[in-house]
Amino acid sequence: MRFAYLGPEGTFTEEAMVRYAPDAEGVPCVDVPTVLDAVRMGEADFAVVPIENSVEGGVNATLDALAQGSPLMIVGEVLVPITFTLVARPGTTLADVRTVGTHPHGWAQCRRWMRDNLPDAVHVPTTSTAAGAAEIASGEAQYDAALCSRISAERYDVEVLADGIADNWHAITRFVVVSTPKKLPPATGSDKTTLMVHLAHNEAGGLLDMLEQFAVRGVNLSRIESRPIGDSLGRYGFSIDAEGHVTEERMQAVLIGLHRVCPLVRFMGSYPSAEGRQTRLRPGTSDADFIAARTWVRSLLDS
Amino acid sequence: MRFAYLGPEGTFTEEAMVRYAPDAEGVPCVDVPTVLDAVRMGEADFAVVPIENSVEGGVNATLDALAQGSPLMIVGEVLVPITFTLVARPGTTLADVRTVGTHPHGWAQCRRWMRDNLPDAVHVPTTSTAAGAAEIASGEAQYDAALCSRISAERYDVEVLADGIADNWHAITRFVVVSTPKKLPPATGSDKTTLMVHLAHNEAGGLLDMLEQFAVRGVNLSRIESRPIGDSLGRYGFSIDAEGHVTEERMQAVLIGLHRVCPLVRFMGSYPSAEGRQTRLRPGTSDADFIAARTWVRSLLDS
Amino acid sequence: MRFAYLGPEGTFTEEAMVRYAPDAEGVPCVDVPTVLDAVRMGEADFAVVPIENSVEGGVNATLDALAQGSPLMIVGEVLVPITFTLVARPGTTLADVRTVGTHPHGWAQCRRWMRDNLPDAVHVPTTSTAAGAAEIASGEAQYDAALCSRISAERYDVEVLADGIADNWHAITRFVVVSTPKKLPPATGSDKTTLMVHLAHNEAGGLLDMLEQFAVRGVNLSRIESRPIGDSLGRYGFSIDAEGHVTEERMQAVLIGLHRVCPLVRFMGSYPSAEGRQTRLRPGTSDADFIAARTWVRSLLDS
Amino acid sequence: MRFAYLGPEGTFTEEAMVRYAPDAEGVPCVDVPTVLDAVRMGEADFAVVPIENSVEGGVNATLDALAQGSPLMIVGEVLVPITFTLVARPGTTLADVRTVGTHPHGWAQCRRWMRDNLPDAVHVPTTSTAAGAAEIASGEAQYDAALCSRISAERYDVEVLADGIADNWHAITRFVVVSTPKKLPPATGSDKTTLMVHLAHNEAGGLLDMLEQFAVRGVNLSRIESRPIGDSLGRYGFSIDAEGHVTEERMQAVLIGLHRVCPLVRFMGSYPSAEGRQTRLRPGTSDADFIAARTWVRSLLDS
Repeated sequence: MRFAYLGPEGTFTEEAMVRYAPDAEGVPCVDVPTVLDAVRMGEADFAVVPIENSVEGGVNATLDALAQGSPLMIVGEVLVPITFTLVARPGTTLADVRTVGTHPHGWAQCRRWMRDNLPDAVHVPTTSTAAGAAEIASGEAQYDAALCSRISAERYDVEVLADGIADNWHAITRFVVVSTPKKLPPATGSDKTTLMVHLAHNEAGGLLDMLEQFAVRGVNLSRIESRPIGDSLGRYGFSIDAEGHVTEERMQAVLIGLHRVCPLVRFMGSYPSAEGRQTRLRPGTSDADFIAARTWVRSLLDS
Repeated sequence: MRFAYLGPEGTFTEEAMVRYAPDAEGVPCVDVPTVLDAVRMGEADFAVVPIENSVEGGVNATLDALAQGSPLMIVGEVLVPITFTLVARPGTTLADVRTVGTHPHGWAQCRRWMRDNLPDAVHVPTTSTAAGAAEIASGEAQYDAALCSRISAERYDVEVLADGIADNWHAITRFVVVSTPKKLPPATGSDKTTLMVHLAHNEAGGLLDMLEQFAVRGVNLSRIESRPIGDSLGRYGFSIDAEGHVTEERMQAVLIGLHRVCPLVRFMGSYPSAEGRQTRLRPGTSDADFIAARTWVRSLLDS
Repeated sequence: MRFAYLGPEGTFTEEAMVRYAPDAEGVPCVDVPTVLDAVRMGEADFAVVPIENSVEGGVNATLDALAQGSPLMIVGEVLVPITFTLVARPGTTLADVRTVGTHPHGWAQCRRWMRDNLPDAVHVPTTSTAAGAAEIASGEAQYDAALCSRISAERYDVEVLADGIADNWHAITRFVVVSTPKKLPPATGSDKTTLMVHLAHNEAGGLLDMLEQFAVRGVNLSRIESRPIGDSLGRYGFSIDAEGHVTEERMQAVLIGLHRVCPLVRFMGSYPSAEGRQTRLRPGTSDADFIAARTWVRSLLDS
Repeated sequence: MRFAYLGPEGTFTEEAMVRYAPDAEGVPCVDVPTVLDAVRMGEADFAVVPIENSVEGGVNATLDALAQGSPLMIVGEVLVPITFTLVARPGTTLADVRTVGTHPHGWAQCRRWMRDNLPDAVHVPTTSTAAGAAEIASGEAQYDAALCSRISAERYDVEVLADGIADNWHAITRFVVVSTPKKLPPATGSDKTTLMVHLAHNEAGGLLDMLEQFAVRGVNLSRIESRPIGDSLGRYGFSIDAEGHVTEERMQAVLIGLHRVCPLVRFMGSYPSAEGRQTRLRPGTSDADFIAARTWVRSLLDS
């Protein structure tokens, strides 16, 4: 199977892809919209893109690209712990490093390590963490060293100056695997459903009303992130991961409620949770509870 | 058609029955449970009982009797303004009245008039307002005058000492017409649905959770009354009139939600509102909104 | 100390008074408004009135009388289990009983026992359960036997035909002890605060908004009862017992919130709960939590 | 007065500073933490940093930097519409442009214009939009043209190829003016209060509980953005702008409530809203309403 991913080779996204599908044929792409378009146009069967980082938050480019264009469906997710490797041309020592090339997100996640170990080093932005390693290897780099993933460090002909670099040892990035809308992955009892929802109005009450659609059916949220709708300041949509699967009654009831009261609800897929923790059901929210309730209401109508 | 009603002849309940069905054959009964049993046992086609008084509140005997025993269905309601007539044996004057027979509810609704006009009169309880008039007419009364309905005053051979007596000019009693569960009255766009609901737990949160089942579907309540469940102090059920008809989608969604989270939900009927005011629908709560939302969710499952 | 109570002598209310203050000098009164007026006018130091019955629900006469007129304050409560005694003139046997005098509430609570033991007996209403026993003793009774409290059976010269009569073994009545507004009883950690609250509007949302004032401060309700406001059908106030004492911060915050958004809030007292169960505090709702929060906000203003 | 701002010279942030304080002495800094530290260390009186973009959303670097370290206070805000200018060395034409240097955010906001007008142009990332213009002017640029602000285009010796470039004509960026905690700006009736709030727990209920603290006091939110707390995936704090000023009673009540139930509440300032729209007060939420309610509660305690 062909997997498009956010390239170039050697990024954390490639690592996520390999973890998800070890035998995948990888197709590196230049940015998130291009990755997704590769799937839309049939050039790849699946796409792998980062969606959430435990330090930086939601990956806006992914959240926004998934919310636009022809519909795609998330079919799986992968968690990758994030640590960096500092690489340079052979012969370079840590003391020689004055400039460090890396993607701004990489720089943000290693700032404290840099202050402690290379306080005078200046950041030179690159288009990806892997690009830094590649340019060091090819000799085109305008900087002395690069912060990259361990995969990049292994793949390119570079020397490792320091490994396992991370300001925050809990740093982890979540990647999603995306396809065109085909067969839903079956429910496993430990699933997530991803949605984009716009609010009818932007007062505190609008968000409360939306959240109550989840609460009255006992559905928990594992992620909620605001995204600007883009037409004016203060107009927000919300990207949401809810615990459960669209084939479950309580999730369908939530979706029906959201569809009624929100100007936009975009369903982005139900898929097995990477954490694998069984969803806890509150009393009165199992499929059997819903079916019994509907049967009772139908019996009233037959009278 | 035979109508059982809370007798004896001449009560406000008979007046309600005549307003609802001028040609009804009335069957007066001794108390509310007997009225309802007459319908359950097929001795009458319909029952007429008081359910709510604007001064005294819910009629507990009716609320409790409807909530127990084999199911009955409310099929209609009638509003009757409540004013009293003071009657006595021919020849009696107001100045002669020392004792007044009437039902305790009647006395409660005329107390101020009595203080102003007969400050020394003592109350003698009777089993109904009509019983007072009947006993005056038959000469068996242990009191000088009786407070009764105008129907009673006309029917019995008594003299009217004062008419249109009411402490509260807004006093009105609501009566319901009850049958065995048969065909639901069709929706009119101005309907009520009557329910008895027990709470899962008795904290503030339990009542909040129950009310939110109505709020998230935009269903208003026109009446909510607490009734003790009877097993201990502080355990309450709620008798509720909600605006709308069980054939409407939003009401069905409310009932499904209540059935899931409440230990007891008793459906007591959907019927035309006597006020006749068209139910206002909030955005996203019409049948069309529900059907569109369900169709959308089904389309997600087919993918 | 002089205690006015709902008489005559021998009622369950007298029993409640004796339990609360064994040495009280009792002053029986004819009805609830008269009991309360005796305190208002200084003819008694305290009043004892029934407020809630586990079978019949709230005692409307008391709820309404407390909510009107010059303010009174509940300073204590007493629970009395309710069972009845059937008494008659000496020489009467159970088989002789054709008519039974008692207050309608007494009749309602023994109906099943009557059907089982005296299926043909007819009810004759009296103004109180004690009045039935007194009339039997004096020979003035128009009925063969009376259902009364055990205190009445002991006090009058009557013969006991059956004792411990109760359809519902959990039947219990709650009585409150009332004074003019003087010194608040001190907080005990197991207190109740009684309120009468009108809603700003009568939709489901109005009641929800009111209940949220309690919920956001973690205050539980042990009783909530609707009472008609009296100006039209469907306009309700709510009589509420909340767990806690007005000297506690969270209860004051609730009262401030209610006062802001409800057209009427009547404070009827904070007093020790008869159940004596320690109030559970949710995280963030202790006095210390409120004081720390207010101190913090004040520090922001000083900056 | 000295104003530190996110440099270099010619950025949109400098434009915001000039709009806010035309006579300010500007101190350009390399990144947001450095801008804020300049104020903390007394090297500048005020800092100007971007906080929210109508297209890209919250500026994470600013939201996170304000939420950490010694407290700072927002004292004002400025709105700047965002359009770009494409500049190159004199003599260059649009047809010559193969590579375009700019900050990734600038590229993101002009992507559609680029596809339509320079479909083959490749993006070269720079550390700021102004850096691109500066490098073009100095001849050091590794790209043919730069997308920058109009201020940069005017300041450097470059040729304008296109002006007023924007994919989204509503694009606007909000900047905040920050100082050390000193005197609060006085309330104007059109104010904002900025907060960072962590949730007690991460279920749907946790966010609902937090939002209800605002709702019960009638305080609207004009912005709510989730930010990862950083210790694990799915743990969020919320950056919030609420309508109103901390000197107002209802805002103080919200803060007291949040402080009680949330593990972290950081107050970041109350300041005049740039929109200048008068805050609408719901019934029962004015200072007078709060004071009247508190006075009433105090009167209960004195009894």
